Amino acid sequence: MGIYQASNNMLPVAENTQTKDLLAKFNSVRNQSEYLTRNLKTEDFVVQPVVDVSPPKWHLAHTTWFFEEFVLGPNLPGYTVFHKDYNFLFNSYYESVGERVQRPNRGFMTRPTVEEIKKYRSYVNEHMNEFLESGNDISNDLAYTIQLGLQHEQQHQELLLYDVKYILNQYPLFPKFTEKSVDSSVYKEANFLEVEEGNYEVGNKDQGFCFDNELGAHKVYLHKYEIMDRLVTNGEYLEFINAGGYKEFKYWFMEAWAWVNETDQKHPMHWYFLNGEWYYFSLSGGLVPLDLNAPVTHVSYYEADAYARWKGLRLPTEFEWEVAAKIYEPKVPVSANFVESENYTPRSPGDESYQFFGDVWEWTSSNYSAYPGFQTAEGAIGEYNGKFMVNQMVLKGGSCATPRDHIRHTYRNFFHPYLKWFFNGIRLAKHV
Amino acid sequence: MGIYQASNNMLPVAENTQTKDLLAKFNSVRNQSEYLTRNLKTEDFVVQPVVDVSPPKWHLAHTTWFFEEFVLGPNLPGYTVFHKDYNFLFNSYYESVGERVQRPNRGFMTRPTVEEIKKYRSYVNEHMNEFLESGNDISNDLAYTIQLGLQHEQQHQELLLYDVKYILNQYPLFPKFTEKSVDSSVYKEANFLEVEEGNYEVGNKDQGFCFDNELGAHKVYLHKYEIMDRLVTNGEYLEFINAGGYKEFKYWFMEAWAWVNETDQKHPMHWYFLNGEWYYFSLSGGLVPLDLNAPVTHVSYYEADAYARWKGLRLPTEFEWEVAAKIYEPKVPVSANFVESENYTPRSPGDESYQFFGDVWEWTSSNYSAYPGFQTAEGAIGEYNGKFMVNQMVLKGGSCATPRDHIRHTYRNFFHPYLKWFFNGIRLAKHV
Amino acid sequence: MGIYQASNNMLPVAENTQTKDLLAKFNSVRNQSEYLTRNLKTEDFVVQPVVDVSPPKWHLAHTTWFFEEFVLGPNLPGYTVFHKDYNFLFNSYYESVGERVQRPNRGFMTRPTVEEIKKYRSYVNEHMNEFLESGNDISNDLAYTIQLGLQHEQQHQELLLYDVKYILNQYPLFPKFTEKSVDSSVYKEANFLEVEEGNYEVGNKDQGFCFDNELGAHKVYLHKYEIMDRLVTNGEYLEFINAGGYKEFKYWFMEAWAWVNETDQKHPMHWYFLNGEWYYFSLSGGLVPLDLNAPVTHVSYYEADAYARWKGLRLPTEFEWEVAAKIYEPKVPVSANFVESENYTPRSPGDESYQFFGDVWEWTSSNYSAYPGFQTAEGAIGEYNGKFMVNQMVLKGGSCATPRDHIRHTYRNFFHPYLKWFFNGIRLAKHV
Amino acid sequence: MGIYQASNNMLPVAENTQTKDLLAKFNSVRNQSEYLTRNLKTEDFVVQPVVDVSPPKWHLAHTTWFFEEFVLGPNLPGYTVFHKDYNFLFNSYYESVGERVQRPNRGFMTRPTVEEIKKYRSYVNEHMNEFLESGNDISNDLAYTIQLGLQHEQQHQELLLYDVKYILNQYPLFPKFTEKSVDSSVYKEANFLEVEEGNYEVGNKDQGFCFDNELGAHKVYLHKYEIMDRLVTNGEYLEFINAGGYKEFKYWFMEAWAWVNETDQKHPMHWYFLNGEWYYFSLSGGLVPLDLNAPVTHVSYYEADAYARWKGLRLPTEFEWEVAAKIYEPKVPVSANFVESENYTPRSPGDESYQFFGDVWEWTSSNYSAYPGFQTAEGAIGEYNGKFMVNQMVLKGGSCATPRDHIRHTYRNFFHPYLKWFFNGIRLAKHV
Repeated sequence: MGIYQASNNMLPVAENTQTKDLLAKFNSVRNQSEYLTRNLKTEDFVVQPVVDVSPPKWHLAHTTWFFEEFVLGPNLPGYTVFHKDYNFLFNSYYESVGERVQRPNRGFMTRPTVEEIKKYRSYVNEHMNEFLESGNDISNDLAYTIQLGLQHEQQHQELLLYDVKYILNQYPLFPKFTEKSVDSSVYKEANFLEVEEGNYEVGNKDQGFCFDNELGAHKVYLHKYEIMDRLVTNGEYLEFINAGGYKEFKYWFMEAWAWVNETDQKHPMHWYFLNGEWYYFSLSGGLVPLDLNAPVTHVSYYEADAYARWKGLRLPTEFEWEVAAKIYEPKVPVSANFVESENYTPRSPGDESYQFFGDVWEWTSSNYSAYPGFQTAEGAIGEYNGKFMVNQMVLKGGSCATPRDHIRHTYRNFFHPYLKWFFNGIRLAKHV
Repeated sequence: MGIYQASNNMLPVAENTQTKDLLAKFNSVRNQSEYLTRNLKTEDFVVQPVVDVSPPKWHLAHTTWFFEEFVLGPNLPGYTVFHKDYNFLFNSYYESVGERVQRPNRGFMTRPTVEEIKKYRSYVNEHMNEFLESGNDISNDLAYTIQLGLQHEQQHQELLLYDVKYILNQYPLFPKFTEKSVDSSVYKEANFLEVEEGNYEVGNKDQGFCFDNELGAHKVYLHKYEIMDRLVTNGEYLEFINAGGYKEFKYWFMEAWAWVNETDQKHPMHWYFLNGEWYYFSLSGGLVPLDLNAPVTHVSYYEADAYARWKGLRLPTEFEWEVAAKIYEPKVPVSANFVESENYTPRSPGDESYQFFGDVWEWTSSNYSAYPGFQTAEGAIGEYNGKFMVNQMVLKGGSCATPRDHIRHTYRNFFHPYLKWFFNGIRLAKHV
Repeated sequence: MGIYQASNNMLPVAENTQTKDLLAKFNSVRNQSEYLTRNLKTEDFVVQPVVDVSPPKWHLAHTTWFFEEFVLGPNLPGYTVFHKDYNFLFNSYYESVGERVQRPNRGFMTRPTVEEIKKYRSYVNEHMNEFLESGNDISNDLAYTIQLGLQHEQQHQELLLYDVKYILNQYPLFPKFTEKSVDSSVYKEANFLEVEEGNYEVGNKDQGFCFDNELGAHKVYLHKYEIMDRLVTNGEYLEFINAGGYKEFKYWFMEAWAWVNETDQKHPMHWYFLNGEWYYFSLSGGLVPLDLNAPVTHVSYYEADAYARWKGLRLPTEFEWEVAAKIYEPKVPVSANFVESENYTPRSPGDESYQFFGDVWEWTSSNYSAYPGFQTAEGAIGEYNGKFMVNQMVLKGGSCATPRDHIRHTYRNFFHPYLKWFFNGIRLAKHV
Repeated sequence: MGIYQASNNMLPVAENTQTKDLLAKFNSVRNQSEYLTRNLKTEDFVVQPVVDVSPPKWHLAHTTWFFEEFVLGPNLPGYTVFHKDYNFLFNSYYESVGERVQRPNRGFMTRPTVEEIKKYRSYVNEHMNEFLESGNDISNDLAYTIQLGLQHEQQHQELLLYDVKYILNQYPLFPKFTEKSVDSSVYKEANFLEVEEGNYEVGNKDQGFCFDNELGAHKVYLHKYEIMDRLVTNGEYLEFINAGGYKEFKYWFMEAWAWVNETDQKHPMHWYFLNGEWYYFSLSGGLVPLDLNAPVTHVSYYEADAYARWKGLRLPTEFEWEVAAKIYEPKVPVSANFVESENYTPRSPGDESYQFFGDVWEWTSSNYSAYPGFQTAEGAIGEYNGKFMVNQMVLKGGSCATPRDHIRHTYRNFFHPYLKWFFNGIRLAKHV
């Protein structure tokens, strides 16, 4: 997941330039970051068990740095930075800055402490409030930048939850992040939704906020296809495991097969087979019995593809997903399972939902690449647009860790095909 | 480059089932493999300096195994294999066969000797001649299988040339593979060819032979674009180097930047900067001064993309390439530079050529993936279809190592984005 | 440094079996562990930046586990362990226990928290006090085991200081561990001390505590040699650097040369060259100017040997060191710089001292191996004796992180030749 | 095994400075190198399957380079080198010469061909004959250098046999190097030979040739010990395997245990368990049933030590070995199994032999280090003395690949503890 896909010179006017509304959203998003870490111990904020997992305290500081660097510094007269070295420490692209931090190893820096970072957040929050309460008009560009900082923080909130799950699971005693009673799970029969052949428009033309990788709304020609009306479940995926799916070369891409064998893959991440029963580690209950009706999650693209092949089906392309979702779930359903439900765990679908939104990011067979006319923006914020458009796959629809107001049909998430630690899952499709 | 993309149950009827014609082609293709190795020393046939480079003697044996395994064994009554263990040794997918060859390390097996492998080739050639001269009718399926074996051998001929170049270049004294005088090189001004917006058909519907990854001819919607009328030259690429292109983070994908730094990339493969001048290692002359007007080659996808970004342009998609080539070069030009010219080196374009064909495989920005309705064939030949459809990029148009009768507009080659050792190059495109 | 060199069946009677004395020492040693961490933040206790560095909280828990496992469990009637899983978590050899902790990754386990571990320490301390205050006689064996637990904890105190230095130095702002004013440093002329040829006895025959690797006192024949009367200084080592020592193959072992180049070695660990001046990171002042008269430290065996070779001299063997120290410094000098001085930094020698003791562990040219008649003890405590007797070098004399009552002439410390993070240094010798 | 341990300024006068004798020895040694490769195919000369194994053609060229570089060039007036670049290609320490060969990858250079290298050998042989036949007196120093070149070539002959065995064994069909009928093997009861406590002299004081690492004859004090009167057999080692020795942590050094598990060690190199029976790959018969009475070979130091520990015994030190061999086998027995027997395989002991010489190099528990007064010689030949004196173990006694006239009691061979591909083995000792 890249985090700087936005640029200010070619994006739609930000949805709301009213400073009052911006201020309300600012405080709400910023508070949510701290709320999500309410149950962590100081020690949990520090470590980086694998390179993809950042220490929670780093997320809290880095998202704060954004507002200092791009909003307060250039725009609030007389603003003094909280600490002169934090730009250097919490800029995520500071690799080139100097010898001492050439390989950041975020997880080995025990300082600044969590307490100090919380002071940093308060300091920046206060100045942002001062700035937005000042009654001055702000430009559309600046409003967009602030919006971008908030969307950016929401992305990090989601990453933070993946990372917390990974970190807590390092401890063999399976600590509980929350203890949330989850509704009992129900089985739903799967059916296929049909989409007719023709030209369709994809990409974003709305007035609201979007990232620049969604821009360049354009036409695509789709041949007729069908797409499943819910996500693949743990129970269905278990059939694949039990059928020896991980041991059969024929279901796997050549490089996936090497990955399976070299990293000894046998099941989704966070699953455990103990005393003859399957369990998984969940943010809402620690180690719990596997819920067979809930959507499978923590599978790599390789596994998603192998599963589809074993079923004689395939994954949808990102455009097939987007077009089907626009037709069958034109509005994000109220029942969808987002971060606000505080499950932090995918759950079985309600009767009326196709699960296009929430629960898990859905792997598509589309490589993450530029839409026609995609352009790199000038300047620091836009500097890293498109930096990730190789060897990553597009995922759609948001997850149980996504804020509800963060998702839309055109949103393009992306990860390397071998990654499993985030909330992802599988929806099947077929050619007709 | 995968080598088993074909299947017999869904492909067009092979172009010629006349056994006489097949026999002529068989002998011609088989002789060519040996002709290409005419100047090698026995020692050159043995080594595997990197995992992507196979020993030449392995290519000679493996292509022979195909005919024994899929044609003679099942179809020639009373046929006895040349050596009972060669199926095991020269099957390229024998990784799972047993402990002793779990990691093939082809380049460490000094036996069978080159002489023995040549006997193996003769033995199989004789039986293939016997079989095809017998006057019996052969089925379309079998004719297709034989054609496939020959296409497969042509693919390996091309790989063999890449590998020979890499192997000879291991020796610091730059041995000459051939000494071919090449016409002096001329500069050609670059222009852009325009293609209008609309629905286009891509993929293969012809009667002739094709691989299954070209099937599933289908419609795509293309927005208006322009594409360069020749390849990027060494001189142009040198400007990128001299402008510090390899030292500027902003031109590179995030993962490309890591690759540049970790593997210390500074220029195309086989280039040398000696005493203030640029040279490259060529199969047609050993170490020679860099030809500024010839197409740049031996660049990775990362480099091709970075170069395009530096120019403010981009690479075409595979469909943009295919549609433009069908419009502007509907027939493969007589002047195109294929293996038959025996240069084994890309050269500057003739006046009338757009260089869509020959010289170098052209990187596209398309991930190698399945066309709508792509299906995996049953059985051993088709077993590995689609095994490579992740993390590889499509290349189009053939190279100076490709046999002329092997290429077509719909041909899809594919390699990982970090690979440089084959004959590849750059054509630029832009959105209008 | 191995930590279980002791066994109870072949060692001298422990120096003091009076439970009262044992109790006093127990409380003193245990308190010291906590005292050493008095200035750490909670975050500092958690991380493991390289495999050799353990998280401080792990040291605190692991040393506690020893008393629970080997003293309280078997000897205090009715004792209940503090937590049933701590044996599994804090046993340093639990690699084989089960899948979940096969590769411990101590630095990724954020739980139990520091606070919880302090409770664990208090719980065990209380029960140890109860046990030792009970007025019961305890056997010599048990007294030895308790002594061993305390020696073990002292070894971990020393490791803890190395690790804290390494951890704090991860943070680019160089936090100060303490702020201790150090006496100004003076230069002392180096001379050589002579030892005559002959048979000498080495190894431990005293009544006091020792580890089993010191036992097997035996004779060795030494040829005449001379040994320096102080340690090599930072200033002297800097001459080696400035003379290009790190760039000259001829001073280095073949494998050391590979190490220098592959890991880009240029100076001792924790040194920095900033704006034309040398600094080092010290536990007593953060980043401070290099003290030219203080002993060089944080050099690998490879560097110590290369330095000696550059000087045309050599390192002493462990026996040459031991014999010379017994002759010239038969008692550990009062002025020696141990952990009690709270510098945590080597310093220039006082007039009367040869620096055999304290400051830095001195690399010898002796491979760590068994003395004649060395035997592996039965049972859990002795299980790991001799496990480290390959590819490690013996070091002698203790360091500024060693407790004064922990060292003796026969003490054998040992580390791999490439390790630099502990307090080590160089004394030169020569053949006459 | 280092190959430049010699220096000319501190070694005993070479045993024979008569040019006639030198010439005879020169021709005999040089012919032997070619004789040893008589059964190889051209392809066998080229590859380097692991870094420790050099291509046979490299051995043939490198040993020739020695005479060109150190004898003919400086001493034969008007001598012209065979090829101006061979100094650069066949100098084993040319790593630092330049970018193109910084990591030599000897096994990827297919040129010069075997034929060309044989011409190189002939050319140098002819000039050496011319030089030595000229009737001129040669200095002791030069005679020593020529002797050194021949000893060097004998060391490479031995390495060549290890390497040929490793290379041929890469081919799954187990090619036969020779077909030599070996006498049937007999079991010999093992006993222990006793050596009394006292001062002994070790190291070389003889008049004949020796390497400088043997010089510095000196006294050592040995405590009483016993040493086995033959080598450990395959049958005995198999008991260790069958008793689960490779699965028991307690027999292994800590780092050996990591090695066993990470590299999946289960038995000596070149052993195979097929259809319920043990076989090994031998240079004298290809794949043959394991000879239970022959000495075990191709074990690492880690395995030798673990075996000894399992037996409740230990390995001897290098001095214990040397003193016992001088007492019990003061002359190298006629029956000893050296390269001249053309078995190239260790065999069961004859009645009268203690097997101190021939069959296998015997692991000792001594780290390879300098004798008192060891000095590095000036100049190119001596440049690399002592370069290997860290992390390697001393081995004694020669092997079935050693020329008979190459070995002596004081000879010190040395290898890293993890290496198995050479002919090594185990003799046990114990403290009394």
